[in-house]
Amino acid sequence: MQEFAIGIDIGGTNTKFGIVNSDGKILVQDRILTNETDTIQGFLESLGEKLSPMIRKYGGAKAFRGIGIGAPNGNFYSGNIEHAANLKWKGIVPIANMISEKFKIHTKLTNDANAAAMGEMMYGCAKKFKNFITITLGTGVGSGIVIDGKIVLGHDGFAGELGHVLVRPGGRLHTGTGIRGSLESYASANGVRDTAIELLTQNPKRKSLLRAFLKTNAITSQTVYECALKGDKIANEIFEFTGKILGEAFANFVVFSSPEAIVLFGGLTKAGDLIMNPTKKSMEENLIKVFKNKVTLIFSQLKEADAAILGASALV
Amino acid sequence: MQEFAIGIDIGGTNTKFGIVNSDGKILVQDRILTNETDTIQGFLESLGEKLSPMIRKYGGAKAFRGIGIGAPNGNFYSGNIEHAANLKWKGIVPIANMISEKFKIHTKLTNDANAAAMGEMMYGCAKKFKNFITITLGTGVGSGIVIDGKIVLGHDGFAGELGHVLVRPGGRLHTGTGIRGSLESYASANGVRDTAIELLTQNPKRKSLLRAFLKTNAITSQTVYECALKGDKIANEIFEFTGKILGEAFANFVVFSSPEAIVLFGGLTKAGDLIMNPTKKSMEENLIKVFKNKVTLIFSQLKEADAAILGASALV
Repeated sequence: MQEFAIGIDIGGTNTKFGIVNSDGKILVQDRILTNETDTIQGFLESLGEKLSPMIRKYGGAKAFRGIGIGAPNGNFYSGNIEHAANLKWKGIVPIANMISEKFKIHTKLTNDANAAAMGEMMYGCAKKFKNFITITLGTGVGSGIVIDGKIVLGHDGFAGELGHVLVRPGGRLHTGTGIRGSLESYASANGVRDTAIELLTQNPKRKSLLRAFLKTNAITSQTVYECALKGDKIANEIFEFTGKILGEAFANFVVFSSPEAIVLFGGLTKAGDLIMNPTKKSMEENLIKVFKNKVTLIFSQLKEADAAILGASALV
Repeated sequence: MQEFAIGIDIGGTNTKFGIVNSDGKILVQDRILTNETDTIQGFLESLGEKLSPMIRKYGGAKAFRGIGIGAPNGNFYSGNIEHAANLKWKGIVPIANMISEKFKIHTKLTNDANAAAMGEMMYGCAKKFKNFITITLGTGVGSGIVIDGKIVLGHDGFAGELGHVLVRPGGRLHTGTGIRGSLESYASANGVRDTAIELLTQNPKRKSLLRAFLKTNAITSQTVYECALKGDKIANEIFEFTGKILGEAFANFVVFSSPEAIVLFGGLTKAGDLIMNPTKKSMEENLIKVFKNKVTLIFSQLKEADAAILGASALV
């Protein structure tokens, strides 16, 4: 009778969740703000308010095989979120146990980006690949690494934290980790915003549509995108710079596991060719001969929320 | 009757080879210079002159299970050495076929560093690890990656080329690959020499024991080591700089596959603490919290030639 599963995708901004049937179809889904309250208790309450009625509607706890959670720094082995840089909950949060107790349903946890990679492998454009990497360009930068058809977990379950590789040693400070020059500081939505602020501040005489947003402290990756579409030079340079760094990082990933493809997810991918073209160019420029023109860079074809919910639900 | 195997380790400078029995004991070994002649034919002749008598002594081709070769850019799937940056043989060299035909013994090829990793896993200090990375700091920088007890080959057999990751994008030119700022340009024996030349040239007024060697174009990683032992400041800074870069690269490897250990091989490891201490410090400084103080950095306990010969022989 356990015909349904629940997938929960905890992101830096939104937490999305849905009920999935055994065919991998999302029957119902919703979302809450992850950091609306400061505490994990507040989060669990908000989640319960929306998820409990769904569970009741589909037959109660007994109708569910389990709950799968994808979360930043989520550890498959321990069921804990440990020291997540982009969440308000600090330290070690035994989220799998907490959710399991709250809803009385068996719960498994993994890294949010690993969940997306599983969704992509089972239902998305990575179905045909056995060696690929998914990169989520959202509030942060997440990643899931698949080698020979298996998610790479590492000896402790923390493998695949590619947002934290150094790309500009000694460079921009990542306030969440204290590390200088990591990929996430540049290639996340926040990174794009910070690059915009830097470029505008360092070049006070250059005109840009972005200046209006700078004054009101309203620059986001979205405003940079919109200004780039309107032909704004600085906005376009921001994407070129972001793509250059992203491509260099991808070249490093390629020499590590020699994947067939890198699949891109997340808000920043809405920029399309603006981010894809400089990324591809930079990756190819920095690859040694044996890897050149071999790696497919693609945007995920799954709806972002769907991939993560499906991937998380596939845990159970 | 096939009781022996042959392991051949083709390096940028030396090619070492030996006959191994079924207990993993090297019965006899020798070496030739890899690039003594410009052609692969010349190499095969030199190899034959030394190896053929060994084979005869141990009962001829029929007594051998096979020949295993570790070589830079050696591809397990194709049996070819493809575009190796540190060898004189350019393009694609079907070395496994050539060796097999010459000695009439079944031959398998893999990346030289993968061979070392196999040797380390079967006979060395990595016996107890299922997730580790070996880094060879020799003429070049090689690597072998083991995840869940298996060598990572990638979809095409070229995974684990960590000498070619970018560590200083746009930095020092690697003449073999045309890439600027790769690990091998800094953390190989040649990289240490180049750092020495740079530091001495950029600081013409600073005194250093190395200046005598600079004049005669005789700086090597060995002379830098000897001067560092004598307390030479610049020589010590060279190792600190090399370790800093190496540690940054290691931090990036750790977030990728979360290994239990990184095992160091190769000529540069003779520098001991001079290279180990700054590397460890730099790695830890650049790791996010979940990885800190978890990864063991160790020097291989196997004799370098032995590890590679044993690992290569384990292929067959």
